[in-house]
Amino acid sequence: MAARAAPYRRVRIDLAYDGSGFHGFAAQDGHRTVEGELAAALERLAGPVSITVAGRTDAGVHARAQTVHVDVPTDARLLGDVERARRALDRMLGPEITIWRVRVVPATFDARFSATERRYRYWLCDGPALDPLDRIAVWHVGPPALDVAAMNAGGRHLIGEHDFASFCRRRGDQHLVRRVDALRVRRRPRGLVELHVAGPAFCHQMVRSIAGCLLRVGRGARGADWVAEALAARDRQVVGQVAPPHGLVLEGVSYGGRRTSPG
Amino acid sequence: MAARAAPYRRVRIDLAYDGSGFHGFAAQDGHRTVEGELAAALERLAGPVSITVAGRTDAGVHARAQTVHVDVPTDARLLGDVERARRALDRMLGPEITIWRVRVVPATFDARFSATERRYRYWLCDGPALDPLDRIAVWHVGPPALDVAAMNAGGRHLIGEHDFASFCRRRGDQHLVRRVDALRVRRRPRGLVELHVAGPAFCHQMVRSIAGCLLRVGRGARGADWVAEALAARDRQVVGQVAPPHGLVLEGVSYGGRRTSPG
Repeated sequence: MAARAAPYRRVRIDLAYDGSGFHGFAAQDGHRTVEGELAAALERLAGPVSITVAGRTDAGVHARAQTVHVDVPTDARLLGDVERARRALDRMLGPEITIWRVRVVPATFDARFSATERRYRYWLCDGPALDPLDRIAVWHVGPPALDVAAMNAGGRHLIGEHDFASFCRRRGDQHLVRRVDALRVRRRPRGLVELHVAGPAFCHQMVRSIAGCLLRVGRGARGADWVAEALAARDRQVVGQVAPPHGLVLEGVSYGGRRTSPG
Repeated sequence: MAARAAPYRRVRIDLAYDGSGFHGFAAQDGHRTVEGELAAALERLAGPVSITVAGRTDAGVHARAQTVHVDVPTDARLLGDVERARRALDRMLGPEITIWRVRVVPATFDARFSATERRYRYWLCDGPALDPLDRIAVWHVGPPALDVAAMNAGGRHLIGEHDFASFCRRRGDQHLVRRVDALRVRRRPRGLVELHVAGPAFCHQMVRSIAGCLLRVGRGARGADWVAEALAARDRQVVGQVAPPHGLVLEGVSYGGRRTSPG
């Protein structure tokens, strides 16, 4: 006898987290992870679930708007009232994780593979001291003042489709061609400098490597055109220091041109 | 024989702190306070000092730009190189306290009595959930959406010189006439609402009482003109709930018209 397809509904969850206290998104035995906490909370409302995520953030990296999907049995308590489920999950997960939205989506939606754009910000502070209220998500590099124009000139070499082997930690024999659609550095109040990067997908440590690379340009240790050379070298050693995780924030993920909006 | 005046120099220190982990600014036996930490660090560079502060913030209240002064012996190590002393203090005080600036000032400067303006911000969030990266300094009141125009209309009744007995915790038989020069409520990104209040001086819990009062107006529980009645009543019971400390930030202190600028 043919087995009947189990009756499931696909649920999309948009969430945010302060990554400081987590060993990254992905579940790991013996470590506190966002996926581990989320799975435990979901289990109470929907039984055991398998979580698919848009952006697997590393230990210490934050997200203002991350997206996941899970398949839950049609009789799961979660499906009874999704706004009530959102509030319950948000409460269970404490102040470091926020659940923005819970909604039932078509089974064709895939949090990872349907994503058309991922947006990240990396925050630096080049002032002599860092405002303690900014410290969770900012890398304090200190003086001298960064040359933001030079950083933008350097960053322009990265826009477009390239082999980003110089900017990625290779996993197996993964191919590392990626497309960067936007890269912009802006000075912000209180000694902050913001790096915004957007593209369909990024490889491991790519945004943090870009931040580390552009920091060298911003400090004048390298010229803007060195970024093109570093890219062409396809060698991680050329780029040098990867920026630390706590300055990085996944700002949002888009599906089919529509942006996720936190809150 | 007449004692010779001890040779002292007055030093102004501008600082910031995340108030979450402190029992307020003012030193208290058996409690971790900003003043206690600062005095201990200063003692290493200048011997025991007495600290005079611009704004005695309560437990849990933050400051982006607080100002203090101390008198230190002319032979104190601190005076040898004040920028070096700033860096040393900043390091000793850890990530929750930042030292923006250390400078020698005339003995006529008084951090408390020379201050001509104090500026505070109170942050609220009326979204269904709070971004975890904002949670240190925001009070999450949740929906319904606050009526910012009504809050501004209510707040206008408080601008000018008034007896703020309804908005203050009286200490002894203190007189409670104060002047509010500016009061403005603005909607900000990510579901945040910002209340800005400025004036020469504030009495105890005054800004937090104003925030609690305007919240009632913003939610439509009271009309804007009720604020005038509450002020006229000179009775704390009328105003009701004082907003919690963690949404309050001392943004800066001015002396003789010049603003302190963090960073």
